[in-house]
Amino acid sequence: MPERPTTYEFDRGIAVTAHPDGGYAAELDPGWVVGGGVNGGYLLAVIGNAVRERLAASGHVDPFSVSAHYLSASVPGPATVETEVVRAGGRFSTVAATLVQHVDGVRVPRISTLATYGDLDAAHDATTDAAAAALHLALPVPELPPLEECLLSSDAPPEFKVVAPLLDRFGTRLDPATAMWAVGKPSRNGVIQGWFELADHRPLDPIALLMVVDALPPVTFDLGMPGWAPTLELTAHVRAKPAPGWAVVRHCTRTVAGGLFEEDCDVWDSTGTLVAQSRQLALQPRT
Amino acid sequence: MPERPTTYEFDRGIAVTAHPDGGYAAELDPGWVVGGGVNGGYLLAVIGNAVRERLAASGHVDPFSVSAHYLSASVPGPATVETEVVRAGGRFSTVAATLVQHVDGVRVPRISTLATYGDLDAAHDATTDAAAAALHLALPVPELPPLEECLLSSDAPPEFKVVAPLLDRFGTRLDPATAMWAVGKPSRNGVIQGWFELADHRPLDPIALLMVVDALPPVTFDLGMPGWAPTLELTAHVRAKPAPGWAVVRHCTRTVAGGLFEEDCDVWDSTGTLVAQSRQLALQPRT
Repeated sequence: MPERPTTYEFDRGIAVTAHPDGGYAAELDPGWVVGGGVNGGYLLAVIGNAVRERLAASGHVDPFSVSAHYLSASVPGPATVETEVVRAGGRFSTVAATLVQHVDGVRVPRISTLATYGDLDAAHDATTDAAAAALHLALPVPELPPLEECLLSSDAPPEFKVVAPLLDRFGTRLDPATAMWAVGKPSRNGVIQGWFELADHRPLDPIALLMVVDALPPVTFDLGMPGWAPTLELTAHVRAKPAPGWAVVRHCTRTVAGGLFEEDCDVWDSTGTLVAQSRQLALQPRT
Repeated sequence: MPERPTTYEFDRGIAVTAHPDGGYAAELDPGWVVGGGVNGGYLLAVIGNAVRERLAASGHVDPFSVSAHYLSASVPGPATVETEVVRAGGRFSTVAATLVQHVDGVRVPRISTLATYGDLDAAHDATTDAAAAALHLALPVPELPPLEECLLSSDAPPEFKVVAPLLDRFGTRLDPATAMWAVGKPSRNGVIQGWFELADHRPLDPIALLMVVDALPPVTFDLGMPGWAPTLELTAHVRAKPAPGWAVVRHCTRTVAGGLFEEDCDVWDSTGTLVAQSRQLALQPRT
């Protein structure tokens, strides 16, 4: 198979090297750290890239559904994605993949995943899109202020960026109405949305979407809970290949209870097509 | 540990017997068949019950998040739930569990899952519920017509029940406004909702909620697509222990595209508390 481009830092960050035992070696880049841990979306893209390599020969190179259960916090440095194909053939393949790191020689699992892959182009060919279109059942893209009126998250104060070098990877521009928590005035609606691109303009693709669904600040910021919100589980669905250009990303939560909240994420590409959805269950920050 | 009650058919249907190798033997009951396959929610409850048994000693007996990737259609008869603990201790345990059946002596995986369990009572104790309640961030229960004005799904025509004996397990009463597809007039809103209880009044609990999230007809019925909608992946979150009495269940979809649709399910208990959420990615029926 062709080598993946390494022109962009995202591709360097998610690069994996196949080992004969079905494992894929990765190097977790410290540039994707946020709040002392490595960003969960970036880790999901590393895993997703390893699964893609594992399934390359089958043609099932696009994630349709990836479910990740977060077991312990990853640290920058070497990691391995262990893979096992649990279903092969037909329209879809499913792989069980676990990101592990070795600490003092001991194998420590970080994230366990199940990933169902297929071919997004073939999926489109085989459908009754015309009937679906007639139903107008496509989640509409939210109306955002123009780019230049939105807030560049990498303009955050330097003291904040020390603990969140991640922000320099993104060109995220947040809708000001959903970013008032940054000046101590959270809307308390439980919504954060904005324009998204990678800082170096690396085009989005299905693997990158696995990162995009966890790229915005936790939606609990908008509820006046600025603390860290560890993810218990996140499942991402890639619904279409994204067109080039700025994406629109929307996070929302509807139920904070029992110390947990769900965070739903929808991602649209520059043409207004819904390209990814995710839901995560996360621990509510202490207030 | 105490034996589970077998007074109710649901408990008989999900009963498992531990084997020394970490596997749990189950007998998939033909009463839970729908359209030639065994209902995915029932299967999830069988798996969830095995995981519960596996984790009984840890006190992590409640599902918080269960992600299931459906690999092949199960058939009534013997099955085994293979389990492996991938994280133990702390507030949560995570188990990889696979439902398998043997066909002509060959092991055939049916459903691969990752399940994160904890203690729902402890989760409530450890939180800042007061702060969350002050935010009024709880998804409101939909307003349904009274029970007696809703449609009992087990009143479906006999010729339909032959292929869906599952219906006799449920006391589901559908909101007539979302059940007009039954008379050839789907609303095309992509919503099906109703009251839910098990036909024999077996009280709902966290394991039963794993079944409830896939107990209503596919939401695509309401889009004028009456065919079978195979689930690729379903993730269920149990958010609280349900109070006794009728639950309210709501299915909706917002995006049908590329031959796939997502089906979101929310479940409230009789007190209006949101007790479970799920999202599944399923194949759009051919129209």
